[in-house]
Amino acid sequence: MFSLNSNYLKLKAGYLFPEIARRVQEFITTNPSQADHLIRCGIGDVTEPLPLAVREAMHVAVDEMGSRSTFRGYGPEQGYDFLRRAIQQSEYAARGIPIAEDEIFISDGSKCDGGNILDILGAHPSVALMDPVYPVYVDTNVMAGHTGNAREDGSYEGIVYLECTPENHFIPSLPQRRVDLIYLCYPNNPTGAVASHQALRAWVQYAREHQALLLFDAAYEAYIQDKTLPHSIYEIPGARQCAIEFRSFSKKAGFTGVRCAFTIIPKELLALSATGEKKPLHALWHRRFTTKFNGVSYITQRGAAAIYTPEGAAQVQALLDHYIGNAAILREAVIAAGLTVYGGVHAPYLWVKSPQGETSWQTFDRFLHDYRIVITPGSGFGRAGEGYFRISAFNSRENILEVVKRLSSC
Amino acid sequence: MFSLNSNYLKLKAGYLFPEIARRVQEFITTNPSQADHLIRCGIGDVTEPLPLAVREAMHVAVDEMGSRSTFRGYGPEQGYDFLRRAIQQSEYAARGIPIAEDEIFISDGSKCDGGNILDILGAHPSVALMDPVYPVYVDTNVMAGHTGNAREDGSYEGIVYLECTPENHFIPSLPQRRVDLIYLCYPNNPTGAVASHQALRAWVQYAREHQALLLFDAAYEAYIQDKTLPHSIYEIPGARQCAIEFRSFSKKAGFTGVRCAFTIIPKELLALSATGEKKPLHALWHRRFTTKFNGVSYITQRGAAAIYTPEGAAQVQALLDHYIGNAAILREAVIAAGLTVYGGVHAPYLWVKSPQGETSWQTFDRFLHDYRIVITPGSGFGRAGEGYFRISAFNSRENILEVVKRLSSC
Repeated sequence: MFSLNSNYLKLKAGYLFPEIARRVQEFITTNPSQADHLIRCGIGDVTEPLPLAVREAMHVAVDEMGSRSTFRGYGPEQGYDFLRRAIQQSEYAARGIPIAEDEIFISDGSKCDGGNILDILGAHPSVALMDPVYPVYVDTNVMAGHTGNAREDGSYEGIVYLECTPENHFIPSLPQRRVDLIYLCYPNNPTGAVASHQALRAWVQYAREHQALLLFDAAYEAYIQDKTLPHSIYEIPGARQCAIEFRSFSKKAGFTGVRCAFTIIPKELLALSATGEKKPLHALWHRRFTTKFNGVSYITQRGAAAIYTPEGAAQVQALLDHYIGNAAILREAVIAAGLTVYGGVHAPYLWVKSPQGETSWQTFDRFLHDYRIVITPGSGFGRAGEGYFRISAFNSRENILEVVKRLSSC
Repeated sequence: MFSLNSNYLKLKAGYLFPEIARRVQEFITTNPSQADHLIRCGIGDVTEPLPLAVREAMHVAVDEMGSRSTFRGYGPEQGYDFLRRAIQQSEYAARGIPIAEDEIFISDGSKCDGGNILDILGAHPSVALMDPVYPVYVDTNVMAGHTGNAREDGSYEGIVYLECTPENHFIPSLPQRRVDLIYLCYPNNPTGAVASHQALRAWVQYAREHQALLLFDAAYEAYIQDKTLPHSIYEIPGARQCAIEFRSFSKKAGFTGVRCAFTIIPKELLALSATGEKKPLHALWHRRFTTKFNGVSYITQRGAAAIYTPEGAAQVQALLDHYIGNAAILREAVIAAGLTVYGGVHAPYLWVKSPQGETSWQTFDRFLHDYRIVITPGSGFGRAGEGYFRISAFNSRENILEVVKRLSSC
């Protein structure tokens, strides 16, 4: 009989967000009158309108599809030149980072890219992940057969977990044993930590010395406030030889429901073939795109390109200011409530210590029942997240002020 | 050092359509005055405007993104209920086919689904493909390590090729040896052949007897003219236990640049785990969607749902009538030119025999130079395609009439 990919059966059933949804639903069923009073600071989804420039560009693109002469069918799988060029100029050239247009691959999401990237890599790599971590990085490696079985605490055999704690400012130590793949995410989800040039230099140096690959998730780079901090791994000399970078419009410009992201694969980035030759990954990713993908909607790409116009950029900045403003308000309130908080300065997430003796899920339940606020339990992001919770700043100002009010009433 | 997926290195460099593009470019460079006179009947891309109902629905959806109260962020990864329901009712229930809404997974393309489906299947399956075949099915199996090396003629060791010829009406014989996966495509790309209930019944019976999986590509089902022919593999009793179906809005409603498709995984479809248990593939595909995908753009899904409104359906039918009308005109012209033609009745493709003694690429070059018409050489679809070429009916009526004129002048 034909078989299934049994690696999937190793996955723990309870992905974090479905479990949150289940508990919230249970609460609403028991307390129907409270349903309208719930404030969701759990899942990191944007809430504010899509920038006007983006909507206008999409309207124009929809109309273009209505006329034979401007209709667009299949586009280039890797993305239209107009968008790749805008990204190259605004995100890289403007910061003095040498990335070529054809090293930018436009996709429908960083989640997709982060999973699909394993397609072009060899079987059975050793993998290091930050702990706590965005669960998708763990799960896609489980599905690809890169791990052993799940342990009781939700971690997987075979993965090297790099603990991120207040003591190391959520920048993990270098791995004790050599690994092939290292996932880094800065500004970090869930801890809200940000990495300095110096911190990233250490990782680039490690990767080059140990011939490892850095998978650098910069989905939240737009939230960096300090102009001296790096937005891209390629601001670090040598990174072009050892790093892939993931970027997304989801959190930068409110695209979670619109779907557009991009991944950078520098042409100097080489990996070992089965016959021992070093070959560029760029050609493989290009081949994957042309064979297993058909490009992002033309209409979506026109919308994404609009954020690089002067009007679009101003509207995006206003959106970012709104969310980072929320984060600042939340920080003060959480501190005033006597809790210890990290992040929320260069990231839309606050990482908060649960009160002494309380587990993450206990805090979750207490916040749900006492404050009618949905948070994300830190343990859902890994073992090292136990005893913490994440508050998302993605919300209306009104809701954030209401959260402040409820927290101050405790 | 970290390694790459060396299976990619087995792929033949020249994917069909880039090679066509190269020869066309060379022709234009040599004959710049002819550039404007070229008629492209090569790549199967739609040319006519997106239906008005689709555009109107997308405009509304774009505007919804502009208001906090109607803004949509992350949607359900498997697709919005409004679209799954519309598909369930119009494509399946209306034809008496028992498919549940949650067996329908909305994606950004059949090309993506056709490649990604291998993710949830076991390693090293034996694979049977029709020959000629849509190249993506071959290449994704090469990339997944399901084949040996490429042979001189472009075929791969380890794949079972099922020859489709005029003698068998382009419905291949059952495989001589047992296989795990069988790719079928009806109406067929590239031959334009269509399968009867009887033909599909034989395949379903084979798959059930041999515990094989049918991967049924029905991207062109909307072109079927004869009301007695099956549109879905699930019109065949027993198919729910042995088949996955791929559908697309690309050719049905002009969505090649908009990107929306869907895949059906019935809940009764079981596959063998490493420990010898039979488990449903539905749960694995669901897990893949939630972990490696974030859903199709809300705006796109609203556009897709509009084709199931009365106005949308009428506009889609007009589009289909236009293309199938083109195919009928082309058929007559090709026959009048003394060539033998197949397909073009229930499919937007004509499969034409090259004149005696001419290879597919020789015909391609002759059509390019003598008629300034771009066709697709049949050998690009596999060994059994040698000596044939494909003409696509995706064009304006004006261009099709010009093709007729040029062919009649020979």
